[in-house]
Amino acid sequence: MLQDAARFLRTHDDILLIAHVSPDGDTLGSCFALYGALLELGKHAQVVCEDPVPAIYRFLPFSDQLIPPEQASPAEAVVCVDCADLARTGRCELLFRAAKATLNIDHHSTNDHYAEANYVQKAGATGELIFNVINCLKITLNKNIASCLYVAITTDTGNFSYSNTTPDTMRIAADILDTGIDLPYLNRCLFRTVPFPKLKLHALGVTKAKLYDYGRIAISYITLEDIASCGATSEDTEGIIDAIRDIDSVEVAALLRESDDGLVRVSLRGKTSADVSKIATRLGGGGHKLAAGCTMSPPVAEAAEQILGFAIELLHGVSE
Amino acid sequence: MLQDAARFLRTHDDILLIAHVSPDGDTLGSCFALYGALLELGKHAQVVCEDPVPAIYRFLPFSDQLIPPEQASPAEAVVCVDCADLARTGRCELLFRAAKATLNIDHHSTNDHYAEANYVQKAGATGELIFNVINCLKITLNKNIASCLYVAITTDTGNFSYSNTTPDTMRIAADILDTGIDLPYLNRCLFRTVPFPKLKLHALGVTKAKLYDYGRIAISYITLEDIASCGATSEDTEGIIDAIRDIDSVEVAALLRESDDGLVRVSLRGKTSADVSKIATRLGGGGHKLAAGCTMSPPVAEAAEQILGFAIELLHGVSE
Repeated sequence: MLQDAARFLRTHDDILLIAHVSPDGDTLGSCFALYGALLELGKHAQVVCEDPVPAIYRFLPFSDQLIPPEQASPAEAVVCVDCADLARTGRCELLFRAAKATLNIDHHSTNDHYAEANYVQKAGATGELIFNVINCLKITLNKNIASCLYVAITTDTGNFSYSNTTPDTMRIAADILDTGIDLPYLNRCLFRTVPFPKLKLHALGVTKAKLYDYGRIAISYITLEDIASCGATSEDTEGIIDAIRDIDSVEVAALLRESDDGLVRVSLRGKTSADVSKIATRLGGGGHKLAAGCTMSPPVAEAAEQILGFAIELLHGVSE
Repeated sequence: MLQDAARFLRTHDDILLIAHVSPDGDTLGSCFALYGALLELGKHAQVVCEDPVPAIYRFLPFSDQLIPPEQASPAEAVVCVDCADLARTGRCELLFRAAKATLNIDHHSTNDHYAEANYVQKAGATGELIFNVINCLKITLNKNIASCLYVAITTDTGNFSYSNTTPDTMRIAADILDTGIDLPYLNRCLFRTVPFPKLKLHALGVTKAKLYDYGRIAISYITLEDIASCGATSEDTEGIIDAIRDIDSVEVAALLRESDDGLVRVSLRGKTSADVSKIATRLGGGGHKLAAGCTMSPPVAEAAEQILGFAIELLHGVSE
């Protein structure tokens, strides 16, 4: 599989790389690293994505090279990077279908091997697979390529803290660090840069949090007025639920927020044993044991009351 | 030096390990890892510290073994772990002075080689040196020892993000992960567990922050009443300054807090080029370019005004 990918990239000289829609650090870092490696080999390469590079990733080397599918020149060889299925390529799927040769490099276990050549393998990040490919092609890592790989890996492994972090992840990171990348700078860009409105909104979310059931349940809610008062956007609510979940006594955390469509979006988090997807399922939502969500009707205060009731039942084992 | 340490530990059978005062993750993780390793060798060992294990580190394997110097039995061999000088051992210095043989294992560049045998080497954490010693003694890492080493290394390298993180750090972490330690659990204990009063105080510190000079300066202050209103303690202010420094536009951040002694403690942070130690020095304090501090007279609001004036002068290059 690794050899297939290396052979594919050696064979073709005009290669189009596709990042998935709503691009994250792994798909972008992986694409730009591979782009830089292909340039080292003297090949022509393009990086394409339906969506632009999010502000937080604009420090990435080669990030100014990303183009929308409409601007891409047709290429005979196309590589999907970190896309679990073709739908993840969005409007770039047309470029994939038009290509003579296709390759799929991805670490998602649900990947359905949709290309002619597939390098699909479990890993903390697709960036690890790109590292292996670059290594296999005997391309020397430069700092730009290494920085992109570092960003791919650290963002998808929660800065080397999630359960997908393996000894291999660490050994690859060591080889990446051998190039002398600026670790404090990259970490500041990724994890230590927050707009003031978002920071204020997070503080408000924490300030409004209330604990129940001896502190085992934490619930907070954010109204449209809260968001406006901080000069923030609804996307800035991301992460508030994690801060509330991190309270030492908490087993079940919930964040409710008013949505522009008039509904109430509910994020639920468990910490150890409580299965919060049971709450979400009762309300027509879904998710995993420790992270789930659902949509409810306003008013938000009443929705929060109902969530509290379900959370108490969950923790106290009341039959449903 | 490594060989000296290994020979020392092989030679002696009754060994007392000293952690430094106000113990952190590196000194504790390193001591408990070495303690576990010495048990594997069938030796008698004690871990001694002037201060108890802070609540956040009580999940560490062997942490219930820590004893104050008064409870320690005299031992012929003493090892100081992560202590840059003898003063860092606090009241444990008496045990060091009473020992027949002494060893000093530490990664601080200022270490003055105060013991008979010294294994002092630059590293991200003393935990890396302990790993090397255990390796050299051919002791197989078990999960308990490995978990202690992981905590030592990750806490002293800012979870592999500070400039002291080297390729060696990552390779050692890979070997540690080979043992199958519970990475998500350890990370949750270390970085994702916060008491509600502290979280509320941090939110208050952010809420009270004000930006000046096109957002390049951020200043906040915490009164004794603020701390009381959150049910928090003055130690819970730790970290607020970092959250404020992380605001994207900020170059200079200051947090002022009322102290129990009636004075105002000032923490200063720079981000890239501004040297905040210049502000601290003008007010009789000190520190480094990007992290400094000083003490001022109340009232806190007036002190904040003065800090703002100095910060504007610093950023606009007014001669001092």
